[in-house]
Order: sequence, then structure tokens, then C-alpha cells
Amino acid sequence: MNAPIAVRAPLAVRYAGARTLDVAPGSSEAPGPGEVQLAPEYVGICGTDLHIFHGDMDARVKTPAVIGHEMAGRVVQVGPEVEGWQPGDLVTVIPLRWDGTCPACRKGHQHVCQQLDFIGIDSPGAMQQRWTVPASTLVRLPEGMPLDHAALVEPTAVAVHDVGRAGVQAGERVVVVGGGPVGVLIALVARAQGAEVRVVELSEHRRKLAAELGLAVWNPATEDVPELVRQWTGDAGADVAFEVSGAANGVETAIEVLAVRGRLCLVAIHPSPRVVNLHRFFWRELTLVGARLYDRGDFERAVELLADATIPAAALITGTVPLARAQEAFEALEAGGNVMKILVDCTGTDEESAA
Amino acid sequence: MNAPIAVRAPLAVRYAGARTLDVAPGSSEAPGPGEVQLAPEYVGICGTDLHIFHGDMDARVKTPAVIGHEMAGRVVQVGPEVEGWQPGDLVTVIPLRWDGTCPACRKGHQHVCQQLDFIGIDSPGAMQQRWTVPASTLVRLPEGMPLDHAALVEPTAVAVHDVGRAGVQAGERVVVVGGGPVGVLIALVARAQGAEVRVVELSEHRRKLAAELGLAVWNPATEDVPELVRQWTGDAGADVAFEVSGAANGVETAIEVLAVRGRLCLVAIHPSPRVVNLHRFFWRELTLVGARLYDRGDFERAVELLADATIPAAALITGTVPLARAQEAFEALEAGGNVMKILVDCTGTDEESAA
Repeated sequence: MNAPIAVRAPLAVRYAGARTLDVAPGSSEAPGPGEVQLAPEYVGICGTDLHIFHGDMDARVKTPAVIGHEMAGRVVQVGPEVEGWQPGDLVTVIPLRWDGTCPACRKGHQHVCQQLDFIGIDSPGAMQQRWTVPASTLVRLPEGMPLDHAALVEPTAVAVHDVGRAGVQAGERVVVVGGGPVGVLIALVARAQGAEVRVVELSEHRRKLAAELGLAVWNPATEDVPELVRQWTGDAGADVAFEVSGAANGVETAIEVLAVRGRLCLVAIHPSPRVVNLHRFFWRELTLVGARLYDRGDFERAVELLADATIPAAALITGTVPLARAQEAFEALEAGGNVMKILVDCTGTDEESAA
Repeated sequence: MNAPIAVRAPLAVRYAGARTLDVAPGSSEAPGPGEVQLAPEYVGICGTDLHIFHGDMDARVKTPAVIGHEMAGRVVQVGPEVEGWQPGDLVTVIPLRWDGTCPACRKGHQHVCQQLDFIGIDSPGAMQQRWTVPASTLVRLPEGMPLDHAALVEPTAVAVHDVGRAGVQAGERVVVVGGGPVGVLIALVARAQGAEVRVVELSEHRRKLAAELGLAVWNPATEDVPELVRQWTGDAGADVAFEVSGAANGVETAIEVLAVRGRLCLVAIHPSPRVVNLHRFFWRELTLVGARLYDRGDFERAVELLADATIPAAALITGTVPLARAQEAFEALEAGGNVMKILVDCTGTDEESAA
């Protein structure tokens, strides 16, 4: 068992306002009752983090804010009234705190609690060297699992949740519209479920990466995707489509490719209302299901899929930057280009990280 | 057993072009193998018939066309190779002919066959005194069931199908947006299922009729429906909404009233794409299900619900007109006003009907 790295003054990456991150001393208070203090080692940067960085979520995020919610690390200190955890344990965190009393919680849908506290947006996140969270949020990682790979548990749990919401069955034909990190993870999880999968993606780099993972890919800019689906399915259409692009024409494509009684799983965030061909939903008796976040079962399945390399984590990680250079990583992601998943490495000593 | 009324020269109401019906001699050929000749007694006029009358469906409907598909009547003559039917039997018809070979049929979804022949739109319908249909389309009516009531089996089967697609459970709270014939039937079927139901309807006449059936009604022009739903459900939202209005703001209301994991059943035809708040589907993990037509099980359940007066047919029938005056009935419906369901009575003799 490796002990967490000792740091004298733990540092935190903080969102300080649009397009500005700073690195400042973070909290190092002892964990309270029911809490555990962690040393995050790797923290992935996700689309929501980028939205925060852009300043799009300033109404919700109070500055300065420690962000980040895709993480893997080790237990450092266990607070009172916590059982089952020891310093050194490898963990990831389900970054959700629900109130337990709202109508959604009372129906068992805690993960979409009507007063949900999303840790890393609504309260301090993982992009720091010490992080205190409720013990109830911890998910155990197998000994020996590389923690950079384990930083992909959270987005993989999203994909597991989405594939579950769509009810993907072995032998079904699935179209994933949008081949970014979540789209590719959905494609891999659906394939692991026994589905035949096609990924629709504009970016050449992302198509290349998906193809390297053995996924069949189509370019919607140059190919007639609905026609390709008709040929592929003998004029039936796809059983399931995932809308992961966030684009208006992604929605159109996802609807158009579906078979009679096909299911469209809506994964992407569409902040503005979209024009939707409701007649097609009527005519073909289609179903649309919204999918948001995940629950503990999704996390546990995601850990398995990464631990047994069904999800080839290394291939999805474009790069890792030290905590002190998080701003550069956000800027690179904002600029787009040839990137998939970038991790922030929080293991540096305070001197290194501040360098 | 009453014998069907004898007619020398059976008449048919035919759509002859926009806003024009004529009455002309209909077919009286003997039924072929696998066919049965019926004497329709009552034929309901539905929204689709009105669309045809308006000329909106001229691209699909070949003139002159005998329309009508909501009917009840008696068997007159049984063709070769038909078993189980006798002249005089009371019947209604599932007005669907599927090809049995398309991908939808092969998956068991014959009612939404990709080459569906909808009898009464794509081939001759029921608004005539003799009507020959495949014996496989017949549904038996209980002896003694009033045939004017039985003309409501088809729209009731629509409602049964819709309530089934939405998966309405006892104790659930259901909002029906649109209180025309299908909306009211959905509300009654959902109530029979044990749900608590609210009907949202603009027309005062229709609200009054729904209220007389014991349904709680709201007027969206003067009441804040989402707020009323919040009060009704303790801030949870409704479990199920049915969009039966066909209006853009009907879609908005149906989405806005739903609880986390709520289901929206799309019943109305929206010929043009609609602006849809997809973010709400994501945020609350909503489901939208398209519902179209029905299957044999839906018809059989509809017969039960009408036979045991769970659906009070008489209250829904605004009036009955003889076949020769069908044009007047269509004009009255087109003008709107205080009407719910109007039936065409095909039992008149040829002299009477032609009078």
C-alpha cells in the first residue's frame, strides 16, 4: 500500500472568474463526523468544467471555486463515525449530495434530487491536494488499479447510466451521435453489452481514435448517415440512438436513423430548446429518454469495465498536466483540436506544483 | 338476432375533393376468399376524416374515396375460407392491413407496419351500407351492445393503446392536455386504471362535458396549469402527461408539468416540427413515448370498457345524422362549436338515405 504523498500546504486549483484559474492553498481541515479526507491524484477535465471555465455557469458557481469531479485518489484521514475505510485505500467519489426529502428522492431517484448538490460545481471539487467528502460518496477501487485510469470511472459511469436508460440489449444496432469522450465511452459500453455500434463524429482526430478502438465511424459532413443506417439495418433503422453531440442537427440525425419503436437516449445538454420532429415520434412510436448522471450501481459497473480493460483507459487519455498548469490544459481544451481526455495530476509536492 | 337491413342498392358517402362529399351507389360485390361483407350501422367522424374533408390529405387519398373507420355493424355475407362468423354477428373492425414482411412487422409491430394500409384512408372505408373487409380485421361485439355505442370502440382503443404506452399505474397522477374525444377517452381509461386525472382544455363546452363525466378540468387560458400541478402533487409534478391538443403550447405544458422520471405520451399529430425543451428531458430524466393506433388487445379492452359502461358512450355522442346528410355533419364539425362525437347512421333505406 502506498501512503498518500505528504504535503505541507495542500494546493487547490480555483476558478476565479471567466477564463481564469489560480492555484492557492486549499483546505486542510480534519474531516468531521461521517467525512473522509482524500488526496486526489488524478482529476479529469470534463465538458462541464470547461463551461465553468468559460464563465457560462457564473450564476451557479460561487468564486473562488475549487472545481473538478472526475477523480481517483487515496484516503488520507478518516473522520469520526466512519467505518470501513482506512488511510491509503484507493477510491473514487460519486460527486452527489441529495437532500433525501424531495419528491424525487422519496421516489428513489436521489441522483436527480430536486435540490441536488453536485460536488465540484455547487460545492468544492476534486482539483486539489486534499479534499474532504462524505464517506457515503466513496467507491472502492481495486488494489493495483492505476489511478490515472481510475479518473475515468466517473465519465464511464455516465456511459453505463446512459446505456442502461436506453435499455441496450445484445444484438441491437446502436448509433452514437457525437464521438467525444462520453460518446466513445457509450459506444464501448454498448459494445460490451453485445450491441453493434456506429459512431457519428465530425472531428477527424476523434474518428481516428474511435476507429483505433475498433469502433466503426461515420463522418456526417461527407456521408449520408440515415442512408448508411438503412443499408446497415436492411431498411429497419437503428434500435437505439444516443444524442451526445449537443448540436441541433445531431438531434435530427438521431431521430431520423431510428427504427419503429426505436429509443433515443438524450445525453447531451441542449441549453436552448430544439426543433424536434414530433411527427416521427408518433409515426414510428419512438421513445426519447433523458439520461443524467448516475447512481452507485453505475459507478461499480464502471470500475469493473476499467479494471478488466473493457474500457481501454490509456487510449482515451490524451495527456496529463501538473496541477500548477491546469490553466494551460483548460486553454488547450477550449481551443479544441486533437484532444480527448486530459487529466490534472495533483500528486506533485507543493513546491513542484507551485513552480 | 336482428338481420341486417335489406337494401337494394347500397349507398356510400364519398370524399370527392376538398369540402365535398357525395352520396353514390357503393360496392355490393360478394366477398372474396377470406373476406366478409358487413352492413355498417354507425360510423363516427374523427379528426382524420376532417383532415381528409379539408383537403389536407389529397396527396394520400385518391378521389372519389369512401372514408370512415370508426364503425359498428353486422355481418351480411361470409366469403369462402372464412370460419367463425355468421350473418347477423355484431362486429367492429380494426381498420389496419399490414404487409407482414417489413422490418416493423417482423419485430411484431404490425400496427405500425412500414407499408400500412389504413382502411378508410388508403383503401375504402366504412361510411357506406355494404363494406367488404378481411375477416382477420373483425372484432366481435357482445350481443345486445348498442351499435351506436360500439362505434366508439375504435377511438376508445386509441385511448387504451395510449394509456398502455404511457404505462399508467393505479395511484399515479395524470394530466391530459386536450379534452376532445380522444383526450376525454384517455382520461376515462386512465381513471379506470386507478389514476388520478386532470384534463386541460380551452373549450368551455368540452370542459363542461368532461366535468359532467366526473373529470377535474382546468382552463389553460385563465389558470396557471404548472402551478396547479405543483400544488396538486406537493411540488413533485405529474407522473404522466398526454399531449392530445396538437398545439405548440400543449407540448410545452405537457413537459412542464412532469415529475422527475415523468412520462409524456405523444398522441396528437404535429405535422410541423415543434420547439421542445430538451434540457428538461435531460434534467428530470423524462421520457417521451409516441403512440399511434392500436392492436387487437386494445380493441378487446375497449369493447369491455364500453360494454360495462366504464366509458359512458351516450354522453360522448353529440348527435347522429343519416348517411345522406354526412356533408352537414362534417361542416358542423369543421365549424367547431359545441360538439364532441358525431355519428353517421348508415341504416336508412336507399330511398331514405338518398332523400
